[in-house]
Amino acid sequence: MRLALAQAREAFLDNETPVGAVIVRNGELVSVGRNRRENGKNALYHAEIEAIDKACKKLGGWRLWECEMYVTLEPCPMCAGAIINARIKKLYFGAADPKNGAVISKLRMFDSGFTHIPEYEYGILEEECSDILKEFFKILRNKNKE
Amino acid sequence: MRLALAQAREAFLDNETPVGAVIVRNGELVSVGRNRRENGKNALYHAEIEAIDKACKKLGGWRLWECEMYVTLEPCPMCAGAIINARIKKLYFGAADPKNGAVISKLRMFDSGFTHIPEYEYGILEEECSDILKEFFKILRNKNKE
Repeated sequence: MRLALAQAREAFLDNETPVGAVIVRNGELVSVGRNRRENGKNALYHAEIEAIDKACKKLGGWRLWECEMYVTLEPCPMCAGAIINARIKKLYFGAADPKNGAVISKLRMFDSGFTHIPEYEYGILEEECSDILKEFFKILRNKNKE
Repeated sequence: MRLALAQAREAFLDNETPVGAVIVRNGELVSVGRNRRENGKNALYHAEIEAIDKACKKLGGWRLWECEMYVTLEPCPMCAGAIINARIKKLYFGAADPKNGAVISKLRMFDSGFTHIPEYEYGILEEECSDILKEFFKILRNKNKE
């Protein structure tokens, strides 16, 4: 999760909502991703999507067998769906997202009986994962007031 | 929807589950997409994702204002989430997907109170959209018996 937080910090420095993701397999790093939606001008450029895209390309298949994902924020419906589609074994996330979260908050997608059911754990480094988002939105609000 | 069906046929000829998608804005074609998961070896390569990716690149932004999508099969959670994220105004789909559909079947994602709520209609050219899938899976079953 420390590596995912480092990705979130990179996003922060790029004026992107600071979310970072990492995929590991058997303890080895497979790929990293971070949110690039604004600068990339693309609705698909969330951290999890970048990490899954890179992992499929690196491992040469659409099924990410035995892979686990660490992400700083609870995935949105698109990303939670991508995690199911890629057959990710287990998801660890930091902060919950009451507005857009699709794992425990707004939807419980992994408990909805889809073909693949990823395991999940949350609250990992929750405070740090949440603080970086709060800091980002505080700066954004102050900018908007100027 | 005829254009989306043509995309599904292209996928069929490539031995991919035949699903096609099209994005239009004010009656003008913006982008097309088709399922390429097997040959592309990537969990993200669904028809809707390809169409959204191309549309963001063509229109130069992540918000696909005033855009409507036609897709032959009910979107899965990943694609329904991407449709929300891209702010697509209205979705038209052909056949329902009882196993994986996230609009009316397994989930009702557009009725779940997310920030953006796309309108939707379904059953458009339903028989043709469904028949091409049935034909594909029939051939696949016969192949597996050989």
